[in-house]
Amino acid sequence: MLRVSIRIDMNSDLGEGFGAWSMGDDKGVLSSVSSANVACGYHAGDPSIMRETVKLCASKGVAVGVHVSYPDLMGFGRRNMTCSPQEVYDYCLYQIGALNAFCCTQGVELQHVKPHGALYNQAARDKKLADAIAAAARDSGDGLILLGLAGSEFEPAAKAAGVKFAAEAFADRAYLNDGSLMPRSREGAVIHDADLATRRVVQMVTKGTVTAEDGSQIQFRPDSICLHGDTKEAVDMAEAVRRALEEAGVEIRPLRETM
Amino acid sequence: MLRVSIRIDMNSDLGEGFGAWSMGDDKGVLSSVSSANVACGYHAGDPSIMRETVKLCASKGVAVGVHVSYPDLMGFGRRNMTCSPQEVYDYCLYQIGALNAFCCTQGVELQHVKPHGALYNQAARDKKLADAIAAAARDSGDGLILLGLAGSEFEPAAKAAGVKFAAEAFADRAYLNDGSLMPRSREGAVIHDADLATRRVVQMVTKGTVTAEDGSQIQFRPDSICLHGDTKEAVDMAEAVRRALEEAGVEIRPLRETM
Amino acid sequence: MLRVSIRIDMNSDLGEGFGAWSMGDDKGVLSSVSSANVACGYHAGDPSIMRETVKLCASKGVAVGVHVSYPDLMGFGRRNMTCSPQEVYDYCLYQIGALNAFCCTQGVELQHVKPHGALYNQAARDKKLADAIAAAARDSGDGLILLGLAGSEFEPAAKAAGVKFAAEAFADRAYLNDGSLMPRSREGAVIHDADLATRRVVQMVTKGTVTAEDGSQIQFRPDSICLHGDTKEAVDMAEAVRRALEEAGVEIRPLRETM
Amino acid sequence: MLRVSIRIDMNSDLGEGFGAWSMGDDKGVLSSVSSANVACGYHAGDPSIMRETVKLCASKGVAVGVHVSYPDLMGFGRRNMTCSPQEVYDYCLYQIGALNAFCCTQGVELQHVKPHGALYNQAARDKKLADAIAAAARDSGDGLILLGLAGSEFEPAAKAAGVKFAAEAFADRAYLNDGSLMPRSREGAVIHDADLATRRVVQMVTKGTVTAEDGSQIQFRPDSICLHGDTKEAVDMAEAVRRALEEAGVEIRPLRETM
Repeated sequence: MLRVSIRIDMNSDLGEGFGAWSMGDDKGVLSSVSSANVACGYHAGDPSIMRETVKLCASKGVAVGVHVSYPDLMGFGRRNMTCSPQEVYDYCLYQIGALNAFCCTQGVELQHVKPHGALYNQAARDKKLADAIAAAARDSGDGLILLGLAGSEFEPAAKAAGVKFAAEAFADRAYLNDGSLMPRSREGAVIHDADLATRRVVQMVTKGTVTAEDGSQIQFRPDSICLHGDTKEAVDMAEAVRRALEEAGVEIRPLRETM
Repeated sequence: MLRVSIRIDMNSDLGEGFGAWSMGDDKGVLSSVSSANVACGYHAGDPSIMRETVKLCASKGVAVGVHVSYPDLMGFGRRNMTCSPQEVYDYCLYQIGALNAFCCTQGVELQHVKPHGALYNQAARDKKLADAIAAAARDSGDGLILLGLAGSEFEPAAKAAGVKFAAEAFADRAYLNDGSLMPRSREGAVIHDADLATRRVVQMVTKGTVTAEDGSQIQFRPDSICLHGDTKEAVDMAEAVRRALEEAGVEIRPLRETM
Repeated sequence: MLRVSIRIDMNSDLGEGFGAWSMGDDKGVLSSVSSANVACGYHAGDPSIMRETVKLCASKGVAVGVHVSYPDLMGFGRRNMTCSPQEVYDYCLYQIGALNAFCCTQGVELQHVKPHGALYNQAARDKKLADAIAAAARDSGDGLILLGLAGSEFEPAAKAAGVKFAAEAFADRAYLNDGSLMPRSREGAVIHDADLATRRVVQMVTKGTVTAEDGSQIQFRPDSICLHGDTKEAVDMAEAVRRALEEAGVEIRPLRETM
Repeated sequence: MLRVSIRIDMNSDLGEGFGAWSMGDDKGVLSSVSSANVACGYHAGDPSIMRETVKLCASKGVAVGVHVSYPDLMGFGRRNMTCSPQEVYDYCLYQIGALNAFCCTQGVELQHVKPHGALYNQAARDKKLADAIAAAARDSGDGLILLGLAGSEFEPAAKAAGVKFAAEAFADRAYLNDGSLMPRSREGAVIHDADLATRRVVQMVTKGTVTAEDGSQIQFRPDSICLHGDTKEAVDMAEAVRRALEEAGVEIRPLRETM
């Protein structure tokens, strides 16, 4: 009897220190994920940290992506800015190129581009910004995958640019019955119970559904699950999710192998 | 009768604006030079300016190089810093990669790396820093030429790294009889007379000699002549030098065609 | 017969260079205005430029104000950012304090605070941001005047904070019949004719009215006229406006003497 | 019988986070010290962190000083830079003013200026830089004390400028028999044994001597003891030193009360 294995990617933000400052437990979360979103100097990540992070990813067999951001170190890239699509394109290309240099010297192939923070949130709703990011991914000429919010402007933008799109889901977030994220301002938007989060991810990946906040079961089949590494609890949740997926027979593999 | 044409490169710093600030007359000097050293965000040059500068160079057939710098926008990269060789390597790789992204999207091949300002001056005398820059040029994997001061630490560093070295001379500077630059602190170190500067360059390129400050004729055969574009006088001098060289039968061609 | 002289302030942005970059003709415009808005490092202006600008103002008898901005050197403070009111308060206090240090050492008393660029535009419409700026002006404890757009959120914010408010008008902008600025996106929003601009300013100051874009005469009595110094034309317009006002018997005096 | 109580200041670096990044255990070390050196945005410390740090100091009765630095966030101010004395003066004034604004709004009086990192090390040996820092302290006009290395250029610079000088000693460093610090490059330069460090501090404060690395007892009477808060061990050492001093009858008081 044929058994087709299910595969899924797990991604996390990495290399988010800067100079003398560190953030999160990169080594901890790297044991669980298959893809890393590496900061490139605009919200975090200086050149030395970028080199070390790429090296760390390579040593763990974790695929490397570019975590492109607005230029806002003081705000960690979390504040909306009214940059023009041209500026966003330019900033993306700059950051992609910079990280690519560290990848090339270490024999690592860049896998994806994922917008960070405010750029992620703004571009998910703004066609022009999403188009600018997709165009930067396309023009970098390395077959980069655009990783972004499921059901957002990223998907049509990637399609229009001829770039592969990977939809990500969040292990620790509640969803509305149209497949969109429940806003953080609402009670219950963030799931703190690791067991519940884990069960939800297993359901998404193995059944292709998620239980929306109104109790309905909706179709939902992400290409990647986003996890965090900034706290002990987050690293534990990432480990729990990976273990549960593997126990359910799911293989955790980077996007380039699953798409 | 066979006539072997002499060829020389002329280089200048470009794209040294930042955000709303501009500097120099890029279009003016681009008519005279064959290679451009493009700022990459560490002493000048934001991503949008980088894209536009590469485009401008491409439209004029001018070769593009990376003008790597210490991270010092406030000091325009002109202040010595005690960065470690590893940091210098990382900063170079970052800036090379960032500019390369803009070159790739425009079908331009990066030609060279030239250190800027204080990094140029420090590394010219410091083997470890010169080695770090040469290693970054080598590891970027694109056959980049290292462009730097004639007779400095750059030459052995490039040789050791297996990278081509291009020695540059300055049209407006006096030389000591060992081929080194007269320090700026000494009277007569900078030549303001455009006619004199022009005659000296023609002599360097066609005879392979320069008149040192003590009047002696020394062997001196640069691969590139450095010119400036930050003032009207500088742009005029660049034009005068180019015209005089062409009248002397010299072809102005980018480094990749002359080395 | 008693003749009561009319007085008005004229203000301009100054010290908007950064490091090796300069911007505008500070000396040129300083001959015309009575108050300067000095950049403090967040959109332009490094400490050395700040010291020199305060010195220049003192030598010309021009009053000094703080031109507070979002932290965005690359965008010259012209891009909207979603900073919290607390962040805006903190950024204002930081910039006020920094400039005040240069004023104190030169015996200059800080006169006013004026938001710059995107912060100006956003706070003019956002009560919370306007309140944050007014609170910073009040808490700095030096009787600072808040200078901002006439008819905006700045006025009630200043009143609530117990801070004096100075309403500014623009010599080169058209007004709607409710006293608000015609949006820049509309044809005719910017007045390029120096004669027309000059006549309009004289009318505002001597009659307390302005001709709105629909031809109606509306009440309009600004405390300060904003002029620019970034181009030759702007400096010429500033001179023309000053001359015309003086010929009409108006005295150009800094805000602290007129309010 | 009259008993004259001995008093000493203990100082530590504080507020060294930036944006989303934190560093050290500020609350932990604040329980032990009497003076804080607060970062002002050039090596660490953004305006919001500055406000919070001043508030925290005020709540604990700890005196506030300005930790002035070169502008080098990426290098945490630890890299030598060849800034001119004028630039150093300007950078100091800028940072002093910025922090002073937060102090004034909270009813806190600035107590001292202490150079940070590379600026500390360079100016301790360079009369012109030390003079520039002392001049900035003097010109700020608030009776600021200059806190720096015992036996360095800071002392004559402060004297020449008419500024009080406070000599600091390090609990965890070995001294040569001329009273200078043993260079970090030498074995034994840093003392990791908290008991030994504690005994040495008690000896310095109560006897006015220190045991140099050659075993000799030299005269050594610091005004302040520098402690660290960046690790658990450092915070523990600070507590141990304070306890031992108090048990020896020494009062821990800020500089302004002891000088």
